[in-house]
Order: sequence, then structure tokens, then C-alpha cells
Amino acid sequence: MALKTAVMAHKTAIIRKEHFNAAHRLHNPHWSDEKNREIFGKCNNPNYHGHNYDLEVKVTGFIDQDSGYVMDAKILKNLIREHVVDKYDHKNLNLDTEEFKELNPTAENIAKVIFENLRQVLSDELELKIKLYETERNIVEYPAD
Amino acid sequence: MALKTAVMAHKTAIIRKEHFNAAHRLHNPHWSDEKNREIFGKCNNPNYHGHNYDLEVKVTGFIDQDSGYVMDAKILKNLIREHVVDKYDHKNLNLDTEEFKELNPTAENIAKVIFENLRQVLSDELELKIKLYETERNIVEYPAD
Amino acid sequence: MALKTAVMAHKTAIIRKEHFNAAHRLHNPHWSDEKNREIFGKCNNPNYHGHNYDLEVKVTGFIDQDSGYVMDAKILKNLIREHVVDKYDHKNLNLDTEEFKELNPTAENIAKVIFENLRQVLSDELELKIKLYETERNIVEYPAD
Amino acid sequence: MALKTAVMAHKTAIIRKEHFNAAHRLHNPHWSDEKNREIFGKCNNPNYHGHNYDLEVKVTGFIDQDSGYVMDAKILKNLIREHVVDKYDHKNLNLDTEEFKELNPTAENIAKVIFENLRQVLSDELELKIKLYETERNIVEYPAD
Amino acid sequence: MALKTAVMAHKTAIIRKEHFNAAHRLHNPHWSDEKNREIFGKCNNPNYHGHNYDLEVKVTGFIDQDSGYVMDAKILKNLIREHVVDKYDHKNLNLDTEEFKELNPTAENIAKVIFENLRQVLSDELELKIKLYETERNIVEYPAD
Amino acid sequence: MALKTAVMAHKTAIIRKEHFNAAHRLHNPHWSDEKNREIFGKCNNPNYHGHNYDLEVKVTGFIDQDSGYVMDAKILKNLIREHVVDKYDHKNLNLDTEEFKELNPTAENIAKVIFENLRQVLSDELELKIKLYETERNIVEYPAD
Repeated sequence: MALKTAVMAHKTAIIRKEHFNAAHRLHNPHWSDEKNREIFGKCNNPNYHGHNYDLEVKVTGFIDQDSGYVMDAKILKNLIREHVVDKYDHKNLNLDTEEFKELNPTAENIAKVIFENLRQVLSDELELKIKLYETERNIVEYPAD
Repeated sequence: MALKTAVMAHKTAIIRKEHFNAAHRLHNPHWSDEKNREIFGKCNNPNYHGHNYDLEVKVTGFIDQDSGYVMDAKILKNLIREHVVDKYDHKNLNLDTEEFKELNPTAENIAKVIFENLRQVLSDELELKIKLYETERNIVEYPAD
Repeated sequence: MALKTAVMAHKTAIIRKEHFNAAHRLHNPHWSDEKNREIFGKCNNPNYHGHNYDLEVKVTGFIDQDSGYVMDAKILKNLIREHVVDKYDHKNLNLDTEEFKELNPTAENIAKVIFENLRQVLSDELELKIKLYETERNIVEYPAD
Repeated sequence: MALKTAVMAHKTAIIRKEHFNAAHRLHNPHWSDEKNREIFGKCNNPNYHGHNYDLEVKVTGFIDQDSGYVMDAKILKNLIREHVVDKYDHKNLNLDTEEFKELNPTAENIAKVIFENLRQVLSDELELKIKLYETERNIVEYPAD
Repeated sequence: MALKTAVMAHKTAIIRKEHFNAAHRLHNPHWSDEKNREIFGKCNNPNYHGHNYDLEVKVTGFIDQDSGYVMDAKILKNLIREHVVDKYDHKNLNLDTEEFKELNPTAENIAKVIFENLRQVLSDELELKIKLYETERNIVEYPAD
Repeated sequence: MALKTAVMAHKTAIIRKEHFNAAHRLHNPHWSDEKNREIFGKCNNPNYHGHNYDLEVKVTGFIDQDSGYVMDAKILKNLIREHVVDKYDHKNLNLDTEEFKELNPTAENIAKVIFENLRQVLSDELELKIKLYETERNIVEYPAD
């Protein structure tokens, strides 16, 4: 079965969706208030605003012949809950987390931090990508394809 | 055309969808901190969290024979922008608005306040209903059918 | 089984979703071109524009004890295909249909015409409602609840 | 504040979405195999097929002035988990449940059974409605509006 | 028109969405019942459970200058219907199909089998990718990007 | 912080969603009417039909350390409005635009034209991809991954 053998050489990706709700404010402390308002507009509101963040975590590897899994989706779900949802859900990203005390919580930076959180707990043989929906119309991918 | 005449007697509804992003915190100032945490859980986080609120405004009336409209959807969209989106988008509901200084910003109360805002600027001949999605899984309707 | 008997008295609704793609133009031939442009704006473009119309047909009645159906969804689907989709899909509503030669094809009027098409082929014991999505953000219901 | 007083008289609905995945087969044991195949088509496949059922539970009542809730959505979520999701998720409805041993598991009947399960554990002052998506295109409501 | 010429060199992808509903059970016959339950949990239920599988088939190639198509979407739709939907819709994957008699019907393996089915009937000049939604939250891609 | 430095080397993508509604007709003027009907079927209807086009514009680059942005999403939104939405929304693509006077407005060609429009106004350091939904089930990507 040459065809099947060849096909087995492809990697497969699994994607798990989770979500969390958080408050944030875009602000660069090294800029004047005026420049912050000019660059970040209403996203700079000092009293914060918030989002329902939808998160897709994509893990790529080879299908295990015994289980038929790239990775058990329940294990991936639990890793996301522990290292992402429990840390950021119903939190104020600027005030309640260490990660965004110095780092501006743009969607780009949130995706990068989530990547770093999960990269440390996933096997090196598995590739990782993050897709984060800040709103239905504003989405980021890290790393980009 | 007896059938058409009969059918014309039905009312028709138009629904316009808009959205806004806001921070909030559930809190009853007449309760102890302990009771607030017990009842509202992580929604009571003192530093706020946030949501992308999706809003459906439903207006019911008779179709105007000349325009074919119950109401011009552009006018409805502008009323929603002026009386809802501009007031709450990218705001902290507890701190930045008068309406929720004393009123707990649950999804139920937000829907009721939006109803009251729009009821005052819509013609009395038109019925009004609000459907508010706090998350994809938590939704309220005011008034209920 | 008093509870079950009581509950059996409730009616049940089934909803079937279908869609069609059509071109249209909003225009009242009894108005001047100027008034048409003022009222209908870019929807009055003489060369037409178009939409993917998503349609929900809701049929309400009692559950048949033998089949467990209010109405066979396959039969409903075929009625919608014959009396709605085949008539309007990939058509110019103003030019290619009799119904909208004199009647302005607003979402309200399209929903009413679809209601009338289906009302004539459904059993009198079944109630009928139409929900039509002109876009994700502009929706009509006929008759309104 | 006459307006607010009047408005307070309206009931409010909250909707909670959950989902479960199950196998089923449509079959009336009092009919011949031939009639079952004729009426239920491929849904009568003796080896079963399955669905991701999306469930909306709508509870209507007055807003509690202290909490701002019609009902705590966390409590509603837990009731749905206990009385619906834990009973039907990843089950074969025909073989693994008492409810559908004699009752044909059409979407209509599943919605009615879910209604009866939840009706018994909700306060009498709250109204209840079930909306069940068997697929994106086949939906039922019980009781109908 | 150097720019246009350069741009023409890019490949284009078309994606067609279809769906099917099926029952399955995760089970490795070479493992003990205990190990199967441990690894696959409730997905190992001996009486099966089911899903609405949403399928995206992505075909990549150059745009034909005469038709403006990479490939006629109607032809792609018919290939998917013949080689995927008609084979798996309303079926029990473990019992009713040859492909999954020995192969565990995880989402990963189903995507791989669908890829192999379609790879054999598509022109060699066209690249093929499969994206399969087992639920809204569990998705696989084969081959991975 | 070797890990962070390494991670910074990844590019990030932002995606902005917009939409427009347009009429079109598939037609190759160098073919006979008969061949046009054979190849394009009901999409060849001489009076046009239409779609709600959903558009995803993906821009890839490095995160700016000061703003935390790959590119300000408001600027991207304004570029899409100016160079895509204002040109095609509520238009007949065949009659009202220069781009599709000679070019068949298939989804593939529309995506390519949108790419060319935006490529000219984006910085060379940013990569660009277009995803266009003609319907929920027919989608194109240009350039393909």
C-alpha cells in the first residue's frame, strides 16, 4: 500500500477552541497621555473596557498509530484551562496579571504570551500556533503562517 | 384579492444587530464583600472584566405601503449608535456611565436600560424588544415574549 | 400521568433553514428619481446589487404521536425549494419575477411574499412564520410575534 | 419615575446555551421495517447515526432587585448539566436512556423530554422554553411561542 | 503591467463546505476494555454516540484565464457528495463502512481517509487539504500547513 | 531571556473582517451564450444575481515594540473601506466597475483584484492575503498558503 504509506508522512493538526472574558486598556507608559490617546483612541480609556476573547490553539504532529490521535484533545483542553483560561478569565489584564504589567495587552501581545505559556508545557515534537479573536472582526495569529 | 388584504393585517418586525465592548463588575454596594463574592463569584473581581456585547434591536409595526419599510434600517442603526453604542462602547459601565452607578450591570439590567434609552426615541406605534448577548452562551431578552 | 398529559397540550415548532442569492434594487416607480435616491440611498443603484438571503421557515403544530414529527422536515425542505428557492435563487427580483414587478423588494416585502407562497401549500392546522436575513445585521420576521 | 415603574412590570428572559453529542435512530416499533424506511429514510439506519445537539434553555421571570438576575446563570448551567448533558452526552439515545426506549427520539420529542426534565427542577414562577438545534438547518422549539 | 504579471504567478485556493451526520465510537481492538475506557473516556461508549461533521475541502491551483475558476465549485461539490457525503452521512462509521472497520474513527483518521478518497479523483495539478469540525471546538486539518 | 528573544523573531498576522453586497454575473464574452450557460449555469443569468461578500484581509509582519501592533487595525479598516468597500458595496460588479468590465467576476478574480488594490497601499514589509466568502459554503484565498 504505497499510497497509504506516502500519505502517512503528512503531519496533521488539531485545533481546540476555548474562550475567556477580560478587561484591558492599551497604554504605553513611556508615552505622554496625549500620544497614548492619539495612537490608541478609545482603547486607551483609563477605566478599561473589555472583550470576550475566543482562542484557537493549533497543535501539529504525526498521528499516533495506536490511539489515532495527534494529541488527546482532553489533555490539550486541560493545558489551555490551566495555563490560559484560569490565568486571564474574568481578570483585568493590566492590573491582575504579571505578564501585562509592562507589556501592552494588544491582541498581538496577548497571542504571543499565550503561545509562550503553552510552548513550555507542550512536547518539543509538536508545533504550536495561536489564533485569537479579540472581536469577530479583529483577529491575530502567532506565529503567522 | 382577499388573501393579500388579510395578510396585510399582520405586523412585521425588523431586527438590527450592533455591538459594543465594555468592562463591568457585578457588585451590590448594600451587601458585604463576602456576600458579593459568594453571589457573583469571579464576576465580582474588583478590577473589572469585560465583554463584547452583541445587541439585537427588534422593532415591530406595519409595513409602509410606499417605502416597503417598517422603519428605515439606516435610521434605526443611527438611533442605536447615538443612544447605545456611543454611550457604552469602550467604557467601564460601573465607572464611566450614570446609568450603572447605582444599578448592577448584569445582562438583564443592561438590556432594560438599552430598552428605556431607545423606547424614548421611537414612535409610540412601534413595539420594541432587546436581545443582548453577553457571551455566545449567556443571552437575555427584554421584555420577554 | 397528569404531567405528561398537560405537557402534551403544548404546540411545538420546527424551523428549517434554507438560502438563496438574488439581485435587487429598492425603487418606488411613483416617486421621482431624486426622492428614490433620498429614501433608498445606495440601495437604489439602477444597476442592482445583491444579497445572500438566509431564510428560516417556522411551522408550528402538535407532535404526531406515531411519527414523533410536527411535520416531516424533508417535506418542508422540498416545499421551500419548490416555492421559494427555485423561484428566487440566482434571480434579479425586480426583473425576473412577477411578484416584485410592482412591489418594492425590501426585506419586509420579500418575507411577506415568501409567507404567502408557503401559506397556500401548508395545511391550515399548521401556523407559519418567516425570518429572513438580508445581511447578518438586517433581519425581518413576518408575521411578527 | 413613572416610566421606570411601568417598565419594571415587564418580564425578562435569560437564555443559556449548552450542547451534547449523541447517537440515535428514528424508528416506530409498531410499524413494519418497510414503513419505517419509507417515513424516516436514512434516519432509520439500524446502526444509528448521530448529531451535535445545541441546546438553548430560556427561563423567563422578573429581575430580582438585589442581584439584578432573573436567575443565576451558573445555577441554570448546573441544572442543565445535571438534568440534560450528563444524561444524554456521548450516549445512544435509543439504547442508553430510559426516556427513548419507547419514545421515538425525533428532535421534537427530545426537546419535549428536556423540557419535562427541567420543568420539574425550576421554580413555578419561572417560565421555560427549549430550543434544540439537531443540525444548523433543523431546529425545534418546545413549547412553541 | 509588470505588477499584474507577477501577481498572476500566485496560486489561488477555493474552499467548499459540506457536512454529514454520523455515529462512531473510539476503540482500539488491540487494547483491553479498561485501557480503551481510560484513553477514550465517554467516546468509548459501546453503543456509539454521534456528531454533525462540518467539512471544508480546500483545492489550490492556478486560475484558469477563460473561466476565472481554479476549479468549478459545482464539480467539487459533486465530488465531495459522491466520495464523502454519500459514503458517511447518516452512517455508523465503525459498522457501516469498510474504511473504519480496522481504523479508529478519530477526527484525525476521518480527515485522512477523506483526503485519500478525494486525492484519487482530483487532478494531480491541484493541491488538496481537509479541515474537519467534529464539534465547534474540536477541529483537525490534514495535511497540516 | 533567551526564549523571549527567540520568540520575538516570529512574525504575527492581524486579520480584519469587512463585508460588501454586490450584484454580478459570470460571463465570458469570447464564448457563445450556449457555452456560457453550460459552464456557468444559473450564475450566467443575464439580469444578474448577488451576494453578501464577507472579506478577511490578513496582514503579516513584526510586532512594533512601542505600540504592540503589527499595524493599527483602524488604519487597516480605513484602507479596506477606501480601496474595497467604497468601490464595490451596493454595486453591480460587471456594469459599475472598471475592474470587471473585461475580467469575469468569479470569487477567484474578485479576491485577486482586492489583493492588487490593497497591495499598492500597504508597506512592502507587510505580507498580504485575502480570504473572500462568496457564500458561507464557497470561499477563496489569494494568494493560497
